[in-house]
Amino acid sequence: MNKVLPSALLELIEALSVLPGVGPRTAERYAYYLLRSDEGSAKRVATSLTKLHDNIDYCQKTFALVPQGQKYSQLYTDPSRDKQLVAVVADPFDIVSIENTNEFSGTYHVLGGLVSPIDDIGPDQLKITELIDRVKSDRVKEVILATNASVEGESTALYIQQQLAGLKVKLTRLARGLPIGVDLEYADQITLGRALEGRTIL
Amino acid sequence: MNKVLPSALLELIEALSVLPGVGPRTAERYAYYLLRSDEGSAKRVATSLTKLHDNIDYCQKTFALVPQGQKYSQLYTDPSRDKQLVAVVADPFDIVSIENTNEFSGTYHVLGGLVSPIDDIGPDQLKITELIDRVKSDRVKEVILATNASVEGESTALYIQQQLAGLKVKLTRLARGLPIGVDLEYADQITLGRALEGRTIL
Repeated sequence: MNKVLPSALLELIEALSVLPGVGPRTAERYAYYLLRSDEGSAKRVATSLTKLHDNIDYCQKTFALVPQGQKYSQLYTDPSRDKQLVAVVADPFDIVSIENTNEFSGTYHVLGGLVSPIDDIGPDQLKITELIDRVKSDRVKEVILATNASVEGESTALYIQQQLAGLKVKLTRLARGLPIGVDLEYADQITLGRALEGRTIL
Repeated sequence: MNKVLPSALLELIEALSVLPGVGPRTAERYAYYLLRSDEGSAKRVATSLTKLHDNIDYCQKTFALVPQGQKYSQLYTDPSRDKQLVAVVADPFDIVSIENTNEFSGTYHVLGGLVSPIDDIGPDQLKITELIDRVKSDRVKEVILATNASVEGESTALYIQQQLAGLKVKLTRLARGLPIGVDLEYADQITLGRALEGRTIL
């Protein structure tokens, strides 16, 4: 193989192979694409990567991502946001999704993942203790468990529910049901089951 | 969006979105993965990318990739390789595939792509003139058109066939037929048709 491809390309392929879901073939395709495209694209990715860790920090309250040197997320410090309403999400991109609905005026709490024995992620690696502290210090009235509707999402929600049991805080979670625009006949059984279970009065 | 995610992360997401087949969601996933993993992974990708264009060159005869400063590919200069037998391939990774069979002792010629009107790639962007020159100068006896069994691969092969028509060189192409280990009933019609067409005498 070494005779066939130069080491500079092999190094890049190897480095790109660490990305989630990227196998050697995909890494090869990315590397070759970057080699064939103008040098600018490769340099742009390189520069962004070099700056990445130095320029990003975590909000000390919500654990959302903030520019380096900023202590708290603007979504927390903004006086128009309700600090007594907290949406608990797995990662920072979930915040983008919820913000896009324009229907939430509370604040966020980023767990930094979900409980997942397969990936060796236990509850102690997530920002759950920090959530409990925050519920107390901010006198939070409602915690919305906005985790995914997956096994990991549900079990993380259950764990948090148990941890917050002793505190006087309302716990809610996102509704499960039919996605808008989906026909009954195309909905999977579990979704339909949850939609029936959670039926609302007209 | 700017309030939600730091610009350093947005920049990286944008830079990664240029990769083939990578949309904004995948770019987000890659960027977040690199942010969450140790700084080393990100820096390793960055370093490989920075060195990429400076450390890689093209063989002046075969257009395979070679380390910077090396004029010819080792697969060409190696005296044990038959310079009068040339396998024409679309890109450098095809060389890896053919080398892995351990059944080819000729040399390669990398076209640098395939004729593809959709992607705006015409025959003049490929190393076809160079192939014709090489057939003459190396007194090549056989050119194996080892392009993909796709529309682009077939039409590129056809074009090269026309270009080489005047020269006394044997033109062959890779056999089309049933892949090893595949049942007749699972083979697609076209493959099966080609396998029939190219049937061999026992």
